Amino acid sequence: MFTTAQIAEKIGARLAGDGSVEIKAVGPAGAACATDITFAADDKHREALANSAAAAVIVNELADNFGGPQLIVKDVNAALIETMKLFAPKLTPAAAGVHPTSVIGQNVEIADSASLGPNVTIADNVRIADNCVLAAGVRIGENCTIGRDTRLDSNVVVYHNCRIGSGVIIQANTTVGSTGFGYAPVNGRPVLIPHNGGVVIEDFVEIGANCCIDRAKFGNTIIGAGTKIDNLVQIAHNVVIGKCCLIVGQVGISGSSRLGDGVVLAGQVGIVDNVTIGDGVIIGAQAGVVRDTPAGKKLLGSPAIDYAEKVREFALAHRLPKMAEQLKELIKKVNALEAAANDKK
Amino acid sequence: MFTTAQIAEKIGARLAGDGSVEIKAVGPAGAACATDITFAADDKHREALANSAAAAVIVNELADNFGGPQLIVKDVNAALIETMKLFAPKLTPAAAGVHPTSVIGQNVEIADSASLGPNVTIADNVRIADNCVLAAGVRIGENCTIGRDTRLDSNVVVYHNCRIGSGVIIQANTTVGSTGFGYAPVNGRPVLIPHNGGVVIEDFVEIGANCCIDRAKFGNTIIGAGTKIDNLVQIAHNVVIGKCCLIVGQVGISGSSRLGDGVVLAGQVGIVDNVTIGDGVIIGAQAGVVRDTPAGKKLLGSPAIDYAEKVREFALAHRLPKMAEQLKELIKKVNALEAAANDKK
Amino acid sequence: MFTTAQIAEKIGARLAGDGSVEIKAVGPAGAACATDITFAADDKHREALANSAAAAVIVNELADNFGGPQLIVKDVNAALIETMKLFAPKLTPAAAGVHPTSVIGQNVEIADSASLGPNVTIADNVRIADNCVLAAGVRIGENCTIGRDTRLDSNVVVYHNCRIGSGVIIQANTTVGSTGFGYAPVNGRPVLIPHNGGVVIEDFVEIGANCCIDRAKFGNTIIGAGTKIDNLVQIAHNVVIGKCCLIVGQVGISGSSRLGDGVVLAGQVGIVDNVTIGDGVIIGAQAGVVRDTPAGKKLLGSPAIDYAEKVREFALAHRLPKMAEQLKELIKKVNALEAAANDKK
Repeated sequence: MFTTAQIAEKIGARLAGDGSVEIKAVGPAGAACATDITFAADDKHREALANSAAAAVIVNELADNFGGPQLIVKDVNAALIETMKLFAPKLTPAAAGVHPTSVIGQNVEIADSASLGPNVTIADNVRIADNCVLAAGVRIGENCTIGRDTRLDSNVVVYHNCRIGSGVIIQANTTVGSTGFGYAPVNGRPVLIPHNGGVVIEDFVEIGANCCIDRAKFGNTIIGAGTKIDNLVQIAHNVVIGKCCLIVGQVGISGSSRLGDGVVLAGQVGIVDNVTIGDGVIIGAQAGVVRDTPAGKKLLGSPAIDYAEKVREFALAHRLPKMAEQLKELIKKVNALEAAANDKK
Repeated sequence: MFTTAQIAEKIGARLAGDGSVEIKAVGPAGAACATDITFAADDKHREALANSAAAAVIVNELADNFGGPQLIVKDVNAALIETMKLFAPKLTPAAAGVHPTSVIGQNVEIADSASLGPNVTIADNVRIADNCVLAAGVRIGENCTIGRDTRLDSNVVVYHNCRIGSGVIIQANTTVGSTGFGYAPVNGRPVLIPHNGGVVIEDFVEIGANCCIDRAKFGNTIIGAGTKIDNLVQIAHNVVIGKCCLIVGQVGISGSSRLGDGVVLAGQVGIVDNVTIGDGVIIGAQAGVVRDTPAGKKLLGSPAIDYAEKVREFALAHRLPKMAEQLKELIKKVNALEAAANDKK
Repeated sequence: MFTTAQIAEKIGARLAGDGSVEIKAVGPAGAACATDITFAADDKHREALANSAAAAVIVNELADNFGGPQLIVKDVNAALIETMKLFAPKLTPAAAGVHPTSVIGQNVEIADSASLGPNVTIADNVRIADNCVLAAGVRIGENCTIGRDTRLDSNVVVYHNCRIGSGVIIQANTTVGSTGFGYAPVNGRPVLIPHNGGVVIEDFVEIGANCCIDRAKFGNTIIGAGTKIDNLVQIAHNVVIGKCCLIVGQVGISGSSRLGDGVVLAGQVGIVDNVTIGDGVIIGAQAGVVRDTPAGKKLLGSPAIDYAEKVREFALAHRLPKMAEQLKELIKKVNALEAAANDKK
């Protein structure tokens, strides 16, 4: 528990109002209870303050529709994140060292500050840097490197020859470096093309649970620095993803396609193979991208087209029954006019 | 092997016909062989009896298109389930106790009747109730509770601060309590918002393999009692699901959306964030739900609209080529009529 | 490193040009560097040779747009695969034998040449044939058989009563034999129908990472010989798949549906339950198949219809705004014509 004054001090906020109010948790304006602090990062949040039960609020300027103490900051999101950390559940930190049930290969370097949990297996020629945490059941293949401050959660599997950067998080049951779906017909049957390449996951990438990142046939599959990936996402062989992209749950990106920086793919989007998506492109949920897309475009639909155009198409599709009726009536009228004209001849 | 009379007795059926017929398995009417018992739970099944090779049938009233012995019950589904149990493969029951290769934290309470398989890891402050079965490689984080008669299959990962009820089944490689996809832009880069909440899985929930249930940012992600979830399903942070919902494979439900009771989501459905789906709503396969949906509605399409309306749209879409042609012809005719009218002036 | 002459000899190619050129890797024409050998398996590849930096090329006839040494073979794909093997990273072969941390049940037969890694658990009555490799954390249930030369990667879970053939590959975190999504309403609540059947995976099947193959209610779920399955694919209970099918990432096949031989399902396709898909059918990405489909058909869309027809529909959908305008104008004109005609009466 913290008082509003304590929170203000810890997050560097200017406090307007009572500093002695006791806060037990953080909650969104609409669902907060009387011992919560809430936050207003956008107009929708600001409006919701009027009916919020929260005891206090973090804002970037005084809200006149909220009666309790207000903590005024420059960047509400940054302040929210700091406040959430204050109220995070207290968990036992992972102990440095290698759990005795782990199985470590030859020529492996593990930093003293790294933590390897129970039943971790590390193959030969692996390097694990400072402060890494490998939870129970993580499997690391030959010749991998794991950068400092990186966290691999339980049962993550990393195949051989993958390079994982610093400050990376990979959540449970995700697979990195699986062989891609690359088959060539030989004598009429599909035969696997060897995947000689690897995977490079750059610094500060965060990957959700139960994802698959396939290794490359040639060179590397690359996830650019700062990119964030949700759960159950499929990244195929030789895909190259830029920096700070946001890839939402159940997206699939097919082989050798390339994303620029800051691309946003909403849930369940599919990208065909061998296309290039420019910087800052935004793709709406469930869309299917089938061609190269220039930077800054916003697409929707399957196949995906310009977002605004697709929204218009959806609207017109709803008018199809009406259009069909109008067409039917017109045909009747025109036929009547023609018959009348013929009669006159 | 059981005789028809034995089965009738065990499932409380009235037997019409020969009680000495030997039955080796249960099979659907169309695929049953001569030593199978089949069942007719609906009209389609009843019709299929005419051509079924099955030796006997479970029905709720005598079928006149089937020659073999008939077992008459009030509830065919309930009787089928009991009959299937009779013929279930005999497996060694999980032995009570903790396998010596398991790693157990501090302040952990495990009921004597619970079974923990090889390589299970349990963090601190966990409670595991009577008759639980945790298969090999299950990982349970700090402060979790697992209710009685619950079964977690191999390599399931449950993060800290999750509450799992009684009679729950979670199948292999599923992840519960992963951090959700909640990022806020700070200095132009996406930064993770701490997820201080947990997951509550209520009694008699059943979850398939390789699913992801994210923990909440605030409060809890909640799966209501009796809800059943198929494989590869994504449930995002702060989602609240009601009781006895059916959620089919590869569905994705985005953050903070709420489902009522008895909602049915067919395969590969997507639900955007922050929407409310009323009791008994049915969403057709691959649909994308983008707005609040009142109780009892049936939707289809992406974006999802009223089911019947969408079916009409699909039909009209097939008529588009014809409509385009009709339109072209009409334009020609009207132009001719106008020209003729002008000539007359 | 190999010279062009050495590669030609090893893959049985006729060498046209310098045999002393040193090759370090294989690369696609567009991305190859000056020490790579490339390949031209189709027209697109052949055209790309003109601008390729590659030092040498594998072709089936002399390319006149490429200056370096050419290795001429009958089947470029087969030769490419052999060449890729030459340059594959050298990994430590899995050691024969059972790792001491593995836990083996009763009445288990494991071939001397098989390799079981750390923390593998094998239940009772399992047979594992020659040269199998079960990586760390694999779990095999009761009464399973694993054919020779089969490879199960880390943390794969196989439930009881599954039969896996020879030469099979199953990648990390995949689940085989989970209970399917089969519920029947009893007293108004969904109750699980026991799944008494198993799974049969025939020879030379290859399955990606984080897939789910459900066991059958009756009989077996069957994956036919030579079929290849990508990552995150869902195969429901009692599905029967023919030989040499290609099933791309995130596809879902619902209960009891049947695929013929050589079927191709592109990414994120969904197949409803109880339909039959004929030999050689091709389904485009994100399509939803809702009915039986005869052999040789090519479908697209959700719901899926004939491919060419759907492409036409998509094109016409883009013309909808124009059609709506034309219709509006026509109505105006026809009304004017009618008014004029009435005036004349």
